[in-house]
Amino acid sequence: MLEALKKRVCGLNKVLPAERLVTSTSGNVSGRLPAQPQFVVIKPSGLSFDQMTPETMVVTDLDGKVVEGKLNPSVDLPNHLYLYTHKPELMGVVHTHSAHATAFAVLGLSIPCCMTGMADEFGGEIPCAPYASNEAENIGASILKAMTRAPAVLCASHGVFTFAESPEKAVKAAIMCEDSARTMYYALTMRAALGLPMPKPLPPEEIAKWWGRYHSWYGQKS
Amino acid sequence: MLEALKKRVCGLNKVLPAERLVTSTSGNVSGRLPAQPQFVVIKPSGLSFDQMTPETMVVTDLDGKVVEGKLNPSVDLPNHLYLYTHKPELMGVVHTHSAHATAFAVLGLSIPCCMTGMADEFGGEIPCAPYASNEAENIGASILKAMTRAPAVLCASHGVFTFAESPEKAVKAAIMCEDSARTMYYALTMRAALGLPMPKPLPPEEIAKWWGRYHSWYGQKS
Amino acid sequence: MLEALKKRVCGLNKVLPAERLVTSTSGNVSGRLPAQPQFVVIKPSGLSFDQMTPETMVVTDLDGKVVEGKLNPSVDLPNHLYLYTHKPELMGVVHTHSAHATAFAVLGLSIPCCMTGMADEFGGEIPCAPYASNEAENIGASILKAMTRAPAVLCASHGVFTFAESPEKAVKAAIMCEDSARTMYYALTMRAALGLPMPKPLPPEEIAKWWGRYHSWYGQKS
Amino acid sequence: MLEALKKRVCGLNKVLPAERLVTSTSGNVSGRLPAQPQFVVIKPSGLSFDQMTPETMVVTDLDGKVVEGKLNPSVDLPNHLYLYTHKPELMGVVHTHSAHATAFAVLGLSIPCCMTGMADEFGGEIPCAPYASNEAENIGASILKAMTRAPAVLCASHGVFTFAESPEKAVKAAIMCEDSARTMYYALTMRAALGLPMPKPLPPEEIAKWWGRYHSWYGQKS
Repeated sequence: MLEALKKRVCGLNKVLPAERLVTSTSGNVSGRLPAQPQFVVIKPSGLSFDQMTPETMVVTDLDGKVVEGKLNPSVDLPNHLYLYTHKPELMGVVHTHSAHATAFAVLGLSIPCCMTGMADEFGGEIPCAPYASNEAENIGASILKAMTRAPAVLCASHGVFTFAESPEKAVKAAIMCEDSARTMYYALTMRAALGLPMPKPLPPEEIAKWWGRYHSWYGQKS
Repeated sequence: MLEALKKRVCGLNKVLPAERLVTSTSGNVSGRLPAQPQFVVIKPSGLSFDQMTPETMVVTDLDGKVVEGKLNPSVDLPNHLYLYTHKPELMGVVHTHSAHATAFAVLGLSIPCCMTGMADEFGGEIPCAPYASNEAENIGASILKAMTRAPAVLCASHGVFTFAESPEKAVKAAIMCEDSARTMYYALTMRAALGLPMPKPLPPEEIAKWWGRYHSWYGQKS
Repeated sequence: MLEALKKRVCGLNKVLPAERLVTSTSGNVSGRLPAQPQFVVIKPSGLSFDQMTPETMVVTDLDGKVVEGKLNPSVDLPNHLYLYTHKPELMGVVHTHSAHATAFAVLGLSIPCCMTGMADEFGGEIPCAPYASNEAENIGASILKAMTRAPAVLCASHGVFTFAESPEKAVKAAIMCEDSARTMYYALTMRAALGLPMPKPLPPEEIAKWWGRYHSWYGQKS
Repeated sequence: MLEALKKRVCGLNKVLPAERLVTSTSGNVSGRLPAQPQFVVIKPSGLSFDQMTPETMVVTDLDGKVVEGKLNPSVDLPNHLYLYTHKPELMGVVHTHSAHATAFAVLGLSIPCCMTGMADEFGGEIPCAPYASNEAENIGASILKAMTRAPAVLCASHGVFTFAESPEKAVKAAIMCEDSARTMYYALTMRAALGLPMPKPLPPEEIAKWWGRYHSWYGQKS
């Protein structure tokens, strides 16, 4: 079973540069299986995305001990593990420094939910957690504290973490987070340029309609 | 005949990510034939653009009943059908959340016609319809009410709808709408940065010259 | 000889979308040969860049009469011909609505020469000609009047024309014009955001050093 | 040994357009070997990146005398040589006019270190050296004077130079410099649009933690 997961996680890591969410070797995707939640497959540290193959993926347990793979795991592994340990339903975690979302993070700003596409995917704003140093469980704990029903949290002065019930959905959330940040960046800077009032977030009852539709009728769930 | 249309509509849906007008599975193209206006071919809901084939397209009647295809149609189908029902000349409809155009929509702003490329394609500004919830015929009706001779309408806090006498032309309008929004975004933000007066829209008589030329001499119409 | 030129001009037209200088079917490249300056090869009107082959190129004389080719020439042909007629040394002309340069044009602004890369290619600012309607020789005459030693002129509320002693160099100028406009857009908007004074253009004596080096030592000319 | 280096330097030059750091023929990468530091391999002047092969690379000594290759070396060679001569540990130098970083340079601004990704790669801000003319050793000397532990320096009104213990690392620094400039551009312009206070650089003790981790644990060094 882990062979299939290594293939999925490898392919999903390669989606990050294809979607222009990462630069050079930054960013990482991990995943686990509901049937074997004690094992996590993650990208190796500092390897170029071109060189990744399923065989280069690293398998660890929830304490971070490498149980399979010859390479060092991503240095962000502790943050992934913290989320898996404290949120048993999570099966995928993604970390990026995607540019527009990170610009919100540099300012310590949440991304407001002013459009239906964000209501669909996130069901509200994307919150921004305060800055946390890269020691111990600081980053993981700050993400956990900031979590809402949205599958994404910004980390101030740092970047983006997304998480979901599969690594595929966590990657989708990372894509949609950057897309939302990009559109809101354009809207907020154009607003100021035109001297208009701040755009209001969609009201909660409207967000509920879009989120509800997207999480029930949307797609091919049968 | 519908087999050929399914192939066209499938190919046109794939143009949306190629032109960077959509992210993930958002956005959709539909089309119909002048000879069989009672049938609409549309993208299935939530399927990735890579996985689309002509066989995955969904055929419905104007009441939204699926008459061919195994998958659920796009959740935006009711909005497409509303436009086809109320505008019999329309043979193609496109919906996107393309980033710059959606930024105008977040602010509830029309895109002003300050350049000849917009005069060519749109013959004036691209209007922005007020926000409408995703219930009943709200969105379709608000688009219809905002329509001008331009083949595009923005929906506030939502995104873009384009429509034309063929799905190919509706896709072209979606491409040109985002391009116009992008250029006007640059112009409007740079204007403020330089403390210049607002750029004036082209006068109607100048717009008429460009629109007239583009809709008569332009191309290879014989 | 014209067969080779048709191949060159066709290939150069395809560079425009590859370099993201044009959208849909907008934009065009023409060229002529020093040995046969009475004939101009230009892109056909409204044909998609994908469908272009050397055989689809249109050959005209300097009065705009089609002397070879089955398709209609670009509707911008009169502007190209005006430049060829009044500037015998020109062997290539390019027209685009590239987004950042067109934003300067929407504001009626020249692109100031504040960086060495612009000094290299343009030897000064890229001037902006006043708005001209698409009738008679208005556009061509306004471009001619605005010309400096720079191989590019913006047309207010319209777009970009570039011209050079070969169509290859005119395409290069179109690429560098958009690149210069993009960088200056970032600089000018960031300047305002930080409350800094306007960046000063490079002094003429410094521009002369870069332009001189670029037009003598640079490349593989000997 | 130089054959292998010519292949590496050729491939690294081609990374510049692939990563959109250069336009047309601008930008260049050079490299040398610790075992033969008296020879430098550099891109030829004005050749298109597509046409480059290992055989077209130019080998010079530290005085700029061509010792191998039929083409003229990059006109920026003197700046590369100045850095190699004065910093014996450098084995790679890169020059670009990448757009966001050059916008900082147009304003004469350093890129502040407000995010962990910059702390990782640069260990602080990316400094901006004052404008220097292209004569004698002006540019090289101004870069040397501005150098910090960061592997990048901006040159005012000009562009970017990066340098490292290998040409691969110098190219990585050029990629990360543009990425950092892009994210900070978004942050700084959005800050002003929202009327927020300026984002503070990360404190030195926090930068030390990220820089330290990145230069010890990160990657596959053991």
